[in-house]
Amino acid sequence: MSIEFKPIGYLSTGAEKIPRSWDISDVEGDLIIDRCYTDGLREIKPGQKIYVIFQFHKSPKFNSKYLRINPPRHNRKEMGVFSTHSPVRPNPIGLSILEVLGVEDNVIHVKGLDMLNGTPILDIKPYSHA
Amino acid sequence: MSIEFKPIGYLSTGAEKIPRSWDISDVEGDLIIDRCYTDGLREIKPGQKIYVIFQFHKSPKFNSKYLRINPPRHNRKEMGVFSTHSPVRPNPIGLSILEVLGVEDNVIHVKGLDMLNGTPILDIKPYSHA
Repeated sequence: MSIEFKPIGYLSTGAEKIPRSWDISDVEGDLIIDRCYTDGLREIKPGQKIYVIFQFHKSPKFNSKYLRINPPRHNRKEMGVFSTHSPVRPNPIGLSILEVLGVEDNVIHVKGLDMLNGTPILDIKPYSHA
Repeated sequence: MSIEFKPIGYLSTGAEKIPRSWDISDVEGDLIIDRCYTDGLREIKPGQKIYVIFQFHKSPKFNSKYLRINPPRHNRKEMGVFSTHSPVRPNPIGLSILEVLGVEDNVIHVKGLDMLNGTPILDIKPYSHA
């Protein structure tokens, strides 16, 4: 069984170096959302945080050797992939919490990027924490 | 351009009434993950919170009438879909923050469910907040 999604837009950033996680990033860029969705963006405001769900579009295909990894964040201690934010996952889905700097029509200017230029965006949700 | 994902497992719960959001739920259930991924789950521990990304598999197909909605959480004030957690979205992707009660092999017992029985699970990530 497979599930098909279609990007709602993509990331545009001129940044050459992208940190490996949103919580250590102050890189800025634009989420360019398909114009057909502009009316769905109107309540997104500067200063707000948003969840952005995206595709790790440059990751190698997952196989069992990526189940146990040694991520930099955990001092290279071996961890299961589901306890990490590794970009090489059974489904290459990324989740970032980004700060909104501004919104103009279908473009959201954001800060805190850990995604590559051209990253397909799948969804945007309001941020709230547990 | 479309992107294909394959569920890594599904939710099993006997609960008959599912709250509309994880932050007002104490419903329990089991994330039953494909056995081929068991080694990726080993560091998930009771008491921990996890992000669970899933498919809203019972939602009607999105169309432009779902772009502006009147969600109960916002006292029926009209909002853009990307400022809500509506299950009817351009890509029917859900995000919950769940509490882990226990893990046994490929099964994660969780609390805080706002998903229907049988929901396809796409990804699990460690919870951290902004």
